[in-house]
Amino acid sequence: MDIGKFCIRNGKNFQLDSVACNDSLDYSKKDRPKVEKMLFDNTLKSAELQDRLFAENKHSLLMILQATDAAGKDGTIKHVTSGLNPRGCHVRSFKAPSSEELDHDYLWRVNRQLPERGTIGIFNRSHYEEVLVAKVHDLPSGQQLPDESLKEGFWERRYRQIRDYERYLHENGVVILKIYLHLSKEEQKKRIMKRIDDPAKNWKFSAGDLDERKHWDAYQKAFESMIQNTATDFAPWYVVPADRKWFARTLVSEILLQTLEDINPEYPSLPEDQTKLLSHYREMLEAD
Amino acid sequence: MDIGKFCIRNGKNFQLDSVACNDSLDYSKKDRPKVEKMLFDNTLKSAELQDRLFAENKHSLLMILQATDAAGKDGTIKHVTSGLNPRGCHVRSFKAPSSEELDHDYLWRVNRQLPERGTIGIFNRSHYEEVLVAKVHDLPSGQQLPDESLKEGFWERRYRQIRDYERYLHENGVVILKIYLHLSKEEQKKRIMKRIDDPAKNWKFSAGDLDERKHWDAYQKAFESMIQNTATDFAPWYVVPADRKWFARTLVSEILLQTLEDINPEYPSLPEDQTKLLSHYREMLEAD
Repeated sequence: MDIGKFCIRNGKNFQLDSVACNDSLDYSKKDRPKVEKMLFDNTLKSAELQDRLFAENKHSLLMILQATDAAGKDGTIKHVTSGLNPRGCHVRSFKAPSSEELDHDYLWRVNRQLPERGTIGIFNRSHYEEVLVAKVHDLPSGQQLPDESLKEGFWERRYRQIRDYERYLHENGVVILKIYLHLSKEEQKKRIMKRIDDPAKNWKFSAGDLDERKHWDAYQKAFESMIQNTATDFAPWYVVPADRKWFARTLVSEILLQTLEDINPEYPSLPEDQTKLLSHYREMLEAD
Repeated sequence: MDIGKFCIRNGKNFQLDSVACNDSLDYSKKDRPKVEKMLFDNTLKSAELQDRLFAENKHSLLMILQATDAAGKDGTIKHVTSGLNPRGCHVRSFKAPSSEELDHDYLWRVNRQLPERGTIGIFNRSHYEEVLVAKVHDLPSGQQLPDESLKEGFWERRYRQIRDYERYLHENGVVILKIYLHLSKEEQKKRIMKRIDDPAKNWKFSAGDLDERKHWDAYQKAFESMIQNTATDFAPWYVVPADRKWFARTLVSEILLQTLEDINPEYPSLPEDQTKLLSHYREMLEAD
């Protein structure tokens, strides 16, 4: 599957409406079983690479997911990561910050949840909320920041801080990939409706989603601006069409797999001095 | 699969040699494919229950694994948990404590890693190291503990502290199950030999394992004493015969599944006031 079409490494001229929310490359609905089989195969291959990533213990991989409500973040994470070894795969969900978290800079809580060397970390939402919901609702002005911090150019500085932070991580062994699930307003309506109509899905319904939906256009603008300002060569954004769940999930699994293949981790070998001693250890054990 | 045979809820008279390391119930080697299929099916069923555990968000499940080197802790964790949703399953490995950790009581670092409500936590080693390696090598005497702490009856107090701690967790929604992988000395020898002879496995070899092997009898005594003193109704020990990997893994998956079934988590329903408003929300969305 060609993931290049959806990868933004330089966001400068990026337009959100250049990607169709129902794009599914050459696959149509009748290909669904085939595409789902690809997802399954990708997971097996990723699990094998994950094993090597863990053994090599040099890089970590950080996959960030951002999207509007009901775009399928939870489902995508479930389908793409079930099959990996949970020992080396941690999923973190970032909700509204606690008062302890608000008493720190906005990257503080993110930093505490970074994946350890050798492991895969999945962020369900992330520091990008600080240029999304924070921007749409102008949250920083109520957050005890010094005036100096709030002066003109606030969002430009914030984008630059995020670029700098991600470059630092990249330079220290964290491989970053960022997924934006691109959902249409019409498809969101259908999905929220389903949560209302299907009693088994009622518990997923939150009236807050309807309130946020009123800010649809402001959110779309914030997503576009986020990608324009933070898509870099060392931490690209993938704009994943999300109206067709079966396609979105497989595409994300493909992005994860290809990123692991690029890292190409290897099982380590025993240090030379130990290798030389192996036959000695063998004798010791034999005599036991 | 009958897990009762391996479950110790009252360890008072427990004898380690009452369980054969190569026990595999009525299954013999020719049943291996059937038993591995059971493991696969158990994982699917556990994943479904895990989803409900997460949604209900009341209990957490803590599975502790203890064993001698090469008994298959990592492999068991991999096979039993791959297929679960990593969002709600965290694996923690406890290695030799850091100097920061040693500057706290021995449960401090364990407490920080407990699974959140709604999730499954797997401990690869745990606070039980404090009555295993610590006992075999008499570590506490070098750990800056006050004299009062070290006075006679040290290990009895430690067992009691662990029982009390686990009862506290149990009473606050943490469901605890403890797995001891019971490996024979002969089978350990074979497995370490394989790590020496197979170049692809060399990196797993550690000369330290041979040193620890010299203390085999002391470890067996420590395991037995641990089970005698900390097997309780609220936090039972399962003594899992580990010489046959295919049996051990399936048995552990069965223990996990049956424990989840006992919890029997349910998807929550929407609060009544919200349910009443659903048709109102539906109209709002319809008009959008």
